Amino acid sequence: MALEVFWGSGSPFAWRVLLALEVKRLPYDSRLIQFSKREHKSPEFLRLNPRGKVPVLKDGEFVVYESLAIMKYLDDKYPAVRIFGEDPETSARIMMSVCECESYIEDPTEEVVRPIFSGNAVEQRDAIVSAANSLRDEYALLNAKLTGRQWLVGEAVTAADIVLYPQAAILMRALGKDAAAALDLKLAPLVDYFPAVSQWMRGVEALPGYDRTYPPHWR
Amino acid sequence: MALEVFWGSGSPFAWRVLLALEVKRLPYDSRLIQFSKREHKSPEFLRLNPRGKVPVLKDGEFVVYESLAIMKYLDDKYPAVRIFGEDPETSARIMMSVCECESYIEDPTEEVVRPIFSGNAVEQRDAIVSAANSLRDEYALLNAKLTGRQWLVGEAVTAADIVLYPQAAILMRALGKDAAAALDLKLAPLVDYFPAVSQWMRGVEALPGYDRTYPPHWR
Repeated sequence: MALEVFWGSGSPFAWRVLLALEVKRLPYDSRLIQFSKREHKSPEFLRLNPRGKVPVLKDGEFVVYESLAIMKYLDDKYPAVRIFGEDPETSARIMMSVCECESYIEDPTEEVVRPIFSGNAVEQRDAIVSAANSLRDEYALLNAKLTGRQWLVGEAVTAADIVLYPQAAILMRALGKDAAAALDLKLAPLVDYFPAVSQWMRGVEALPGYDRTYPPHWR
Repeated sequence: MALEVFWGSGSPFAWRVLLALEVKRLPYDSRLIQFSKREHKSPEFLRLNPRGKVPVLKDGEFVVYESLAIMKYLDDKYPAVRIFGEDPETSARIMMSVCECESYIEDPTEEVVRPIFSGNAVEQRDAIVSAANSLRDEYALLNAKLTGRQWLVGEAVTAADIVLYPQAAILMRALGKDAAAALDLKLAPLVDYFPAVSQWMRGVEALPGYDRTYPPHWR
């Protein structure tokens, strides 16, 4: 029985699961949940995840939610192409990078992106500027780490890249809006401020199957 | 060479690493960092973790930080006693529980605990009450999950219990302060509101080595 993935367009957490499936070259049935129709709050979906959140993976009768748990499950269950490393030291470097993204990038990204997408950039200017300051520090660290390297850890794409990429892509999409341009947050164009991060993003976008993971409502 | 653990008294993230070491029965050299002396910002410590945060693990020359990465590294490197499960399905259940703690419990716990410990409970009353409402929902889910069970996943203590316990312990410590009692947040006494969670906490506290992990400045 094929893997079934329930996801939503533009959710960075769902996006990372789709990227993991593509990198691991696992076939899957795509179940795109329409937030606008409240499908994530339907009785059928709440039976899969009582919190009503995407992504959810169904592997036969086994159901997993929480994006990192799904990614790790896929790597444990289908280890032919590994994204969490082969040895304890490499796995630790990958997990450190994943945790740093979750601890230091996710929240400020949300604080920049959400008000811009919801049309509250003017009212929440101070919060956006403060979060953007944190992000500039983080992107400077990433830029240093990625200078002269193609991937965050080792010689191939790993969970470290997969977890970070959707955060960076959503940030860049928000920063492309007029409301963001007016704030001059000094993060975009990425190629000017953090060229190694920009080059790394192009590397993720060149991965086979990337196009299938791209948020449909962004096209 | 023995494992070296750099930790700070009362950090829930450091506490989980100490608990993991005890549950896995791994010997370690304890390096207690004094926040009050700013030892976490010393040049020596910043060489281990440029963010100046505990916990940090040193295994010979190999350095790991970020608590979840440390726990996973210990389990990969020293697998005699497993805390992340033996098979992909059990590992996934454990990781789901870990992620739920990080996604839905850590932030509201911080929002309740920090103002109480820093003497700002009156000024931040609304934020505390709002976070406590979230926590009551989460503790109700945990109480249902733990009713009739000793541990969160399977028949033995796992990373799921180890990650959650310090969050619960710190919350209960904060709720024992006079400033919290005045707010009547309906979380403590835990044994009255969420008896299965209370019994589970006693189970963690009965683990061999638990006493060595207890925050020294709480005694």
